[in-house]
Amino acid sequence: MATIKAAILGFGTVGQGIYHILNEKRQELREKLGVELEVAKILVTDASRERVPGTKHLMTESMDDVLAENNLQVVFEAIVNEEPAFTYLKRAVEAKCHVITANKVMLAKRGEELEALAKVNGVFVGFEATVAGGVPIIKTMKNILLVNEVSCVQGILNGTTNYILTKMRAEGWSFEQALREAQQLGYAEADPFNDVSGQDAFKKLMILSSLAFGEQPNWAEVEVIGIDTISSEQVAEATAQGLRYRHVAEVEKLEDGTIHAKVAPLLVNNEHPLYPVDDVFNAVTMETNYIGTLSVIGPGAGMYPTASVMVEDYAEIIGKRAGFTVTI
Amino acid sequence: MATIKAAILGFGTVGQGIYHILNEKRQELREKLGVELEVAKILVTDASRERVPGTKHLMTESMDDVLAENNLQVVFEAIVNEEPAFTYLKRAVEAKCHVITANKVMLAKRGEELEALAKVNGVFVGFEATVAGGVPIIKTMKNILLVNEVSCVQGILNGTTNYILTKMRAEGWSFEQALREAQQLGYAEADPFNDVSGQDAFKKLMILSSLAFGEQPNWAEVEVIGIDTISSEQVAEATAQGLRYRHVAEVEKLEDGTIHAKVAPLLVNNEHPLYPVDDVFNAVTMETNYIGTLSVIGPGAGMYPTASVMVEDYAEIIGKRAGFTVTI
Repeated sequence: MATIKAAILGFGTVGQGIYHILNEKRQELREKLGVELEVAKILVTDASRERVPGTKHLMTESMDDVLAENNLQVVFEAIVNEEPAFTYLKRAVEAKCHVITANKVMLAKRGEELEALAKVNGVFVGFEATVAGGVPIIKTMKNILLVNEVSCVQGILNGTTNYILTKMRAEGWSFEQALREAQQLGYAEADPFNDVSGQDAFKKLMILSSLAFGEQPNWAEVEVIGIDTISSEQVAEATAQGLRYRHVAEVEKLEDGTIHAKVAPLLVNNEHPLYPVDDVFNAVTMETNYIGTLSVIGPGAGMYPTASVMVEDYAEIIGKRAGFTVTI
Repeated sequence: MATIKAAILGFGTVGQGIYHILNEKRQELREKLGVELEVAKILVTDASRERVPGTKHLMTESMDDVLAENNLQVVFEAIVNEEPAFTYLKRAVEAKCHVITANKVMLAKRGEELEALAKVNGVFVGFEATVAGGVPIIKTMKNILLVNEVSCVQGILNGTTNYILTKMRAEGWSFEQALREAQQLGYAEADPFNDVSGQDAFKKLMILSSLAFGEQPNWAEVEVIGIDTISSEQVAEATAQGLRYRHVAEVEKLEDGTIHAKVAPLLVNNEHPLYPVDDVFNAVTMETNYIGTLSVIGPGAGMYPTASVMVEDYAEIIGKRAGFTVTI
């Protein structure tokens, strides 16, 4: 049976999640896809530290070493920030590897460039994991766009802030207390700035803008308001009125063709679709011309949801080959 | 440019919707998919009645005539009931045509048989439109199943009953009044039995059961309770308590491996994900092992939502070829 060699760049929560799922699902993926997947290399910053038993021999600190792997075909990337991630993926694509990324900062800034490069090299860029964790919003929107036009996309794109707002309301916790809990559960980064300031949701929104409209608004003109200004008193007052705070990211294409985007807290009542979306759940709603309003809701954070959609990206890429072989 | 010839079986609401979308999107589909789509034949029971201006020359009352079309590659089916639909699609598949159906009764009963036949003949069966109208639950679940296991599927699968329950609550209408309105809007069939009895939702649930678990429960053992027994008084009472009636279809795989399914009205409070799902909207929630709980919500009825996902099925099938050509 054909074997496909893959590399994992970055071996933190998500990278390890990918490794675990690929092992747990080895047999099933082989049966479903007709190919064997082998993780041949794992790129880390400190190869002396074995994070998962039995992976030491796979670890390397050099991207040259990764790309030197004979017949490498798939690269999973779970690093944070634009660089060196983009440079690594660029080299992987030029080496004819399909790339699957969870890196929203890199993709928001360089995604269109990476996609163009991938097209030239005849490979795919899987980026389902960059937006809304385990929620398959990218695949859903790509599919919708085959026939429909999307005019507006609105949603909760950051699990940490939704978790914090939920706990402040349901448990009466302070912002700081809820944040500490989110960090202990591994939802929030050690530096929570990107989550609570709305910058993380903003990057995801820009990725959705590129997908829905083929362009992004001028970043400098987008208003981004975080949740760090919301007090326990405000939350209690809203709750007393039957309202809930949600941190909503929205991008729409206006009549004149300009793209308008915004990230800000929003008070919703129990008629609003986002009202029951609690904890780390994310939700994305899009307005389309034929289908109408479509929403997808699910866990927006966590090791397995994110890693799972990356393995699905891989399976989908392989499936395209399988699918075609069948249709010949 | 390559031209793909398609036929439409049944030219009612959905069949006409397909025709309109294919015409409106002709240019765009050509650019996106790199192939020209031509509707070469339309099968109807009375070819003397021109339903859409300019289609008379395409209409025929004979399936032999449809299949006699030189190099026919795609068949859209929008007929109701098992036969003659299944026999038509069987013949189309044997003639190496990809088939795309909206026929839930046929697919619930003969879907596994049709899929097996399609595999042998190297063609695809698109059936997104058989469940939840414009909500892409089939594609979403197929994709999730590449990596995840699904343990339970729950949802509102019939737009007509949800519309009726919504109007009884929001407008204070009687069941009969809400039903008449649903029929005037084209949501409910002339004979509303299948909708209000839960039989329509049951068929859709069986399709989801086949997809999620590879099998269906014994139909005779599935409890199916409709909404026709719910009185205006009961609805008013529920509303006074802050509760809402939803008509919920559910199928789950139990610990011992048996499949348990049920269709019945359910009272939900404002913490329940189905609480804000009003009018003809459908919603499907699935429990998965890696991702967790995932929900998709959108319009469950109407000409364009249903026709749109059928054209998406077509685009996806063509896309598999395009996708592969790129990856060679």
